[in-house]
Amino acid sequence: MWYQKSIEIPARKRGFHLITREILEALPELPECRVGMLNVFIQHTSASLSINENADPTVRDDFESYFSRAVPEGENYYKHTLEGPDDLPAHIKASVLGVSLNIPVSDGRLALGVWQGIYLCEHRDSAGGRTLVLTLGGE
Amino acid sequence: MWYQKSIEIPARKRGFHLITREILEALPELPECRVGMLNVFIQHTSASLSINENADPTVRDDFESYFSRAVPEGENYYKHTLEGPDDLPAHIKASVLGVSLNIPVSDGRLALGVWQGIYLCEHRDSAGGRTLVLTLGGE
Amino acid sequence: MWYQKSIEIPARKRGFHLITREILEALPELPECRVGMLNVFIQHTSASLSINENADPTVRDDFESYFSRAVPEGENYYKHTLEGPDDLPAHIKASVLGVSLNIPVSDGRLALGVWQGIYLCEHRDSAGGRTLVLTLGGE
Repeated sequence: MWYQKSIEIPARKRGFHLITREILEALPELPECRVGMLNVFIQHTSASLSINENADPTVRDDFESYFSRAVPEGENYYKHTLEGPDDLPAHIKASVLGVSLNIPVSDGRLALGVWQGIYLCEHRDSAGGRTLVLTLGGE
Repeated sequence: MWYQKSIEIPARKRGFHLITREILEALPELPECRVGMLNVFIQHTSASLSINENADPTVRDDFESYFSRAVPEGENYYKHTLEGPDDLPAHIKASVLGVSLNIPVSDGRLALGVWQGIYLCEHRDSAGGRTLVLTLGGE
Repeated sequence: MWYQKSIEIPARKRGFHLITREILEALPELPECRVGMLNVFIQHTSASLSINENADPTVRDDFESYFSRAVPEGENYYKHTLEGPDDLPAHIKASVLGVSLNIPVSDGRLALGVWQGIYLCEHRDSAGGRTLVLTLGGE
């Protein structure tokens, strides 16, 4: 059993956003999967995906603060600057955090831990919507 | 062929630990898989998984030293501080390193390189055991 | 349908290199896969894989500049120094960027975004060729 679909996540402001519910709502087939693997893939180079704490919104605030310090804008050695000061740091953050998640499926549900949620990590100041490809393999 | 099980890794001290052997011992079905993919997923937000050097323990020491400097405790801009100074940095490290590994399976064995081992990355000072979901798909 | 092969990427200089074409040329079976998942796995601990911008070579230059600053050589607390000053930083970069990619397959093609390419991230000053395991699962 292989199933795939594309979904569009509407534009979000720069930062880290929980999208677990959007993913689940796009997967009415999930309950039919006894065991398998869900891949979530973002088709962009300046936004990324991660799995982390799903309860306290200050965690997501702190992620934005941390990553924007760890990958600063305006370093004088950057060469790729034509698309704005937030662009090259966005590419770097996308590679540090990753653009592809694999989440096990157990008895028709994502086998996330109690405190785990799926993050859309938006690294641009003014991005549009983001396209995700969801692929479910299993039985 | 899809196979899945949960295992518990007993509590480890903060740092980076080789767990390749624990994973293999939990997978007696592996020799029956000619070609496939093993996913190892940790159901936590303050510990992570990685693949790196399996021989010299000072590599794992240096990882702990490096990541604890790269993601310092006690930054004055952190908001999520109620669970202790090691908690928010642990979440960040978990997203930098990742919580989900995919390792190819070839002729009944993990297709790791000669020097590759599986790391449990424990980012909390005093964590309990950690639950991993192992999912094997293949033929 | 599960398919697997190993390929060798000839030695590249330290830095970030597009290898999308090498991957595709090694996969003549791809057009037969309607929906599935390609895993690309590098069997090394001092090189890694990523997905990022495929058009402007200065992005890859800036990646090399950034990561070599973020993970500096010669820190006085490093213990694993016998294999040269570039070795331990190479291991750390490999874990930050990751050694395993999962890319969805749609209608016989990799479902990469328009601007996405596959990077080989070579972190050693003088490495040899690098071995990749390509695993395709799908239908």
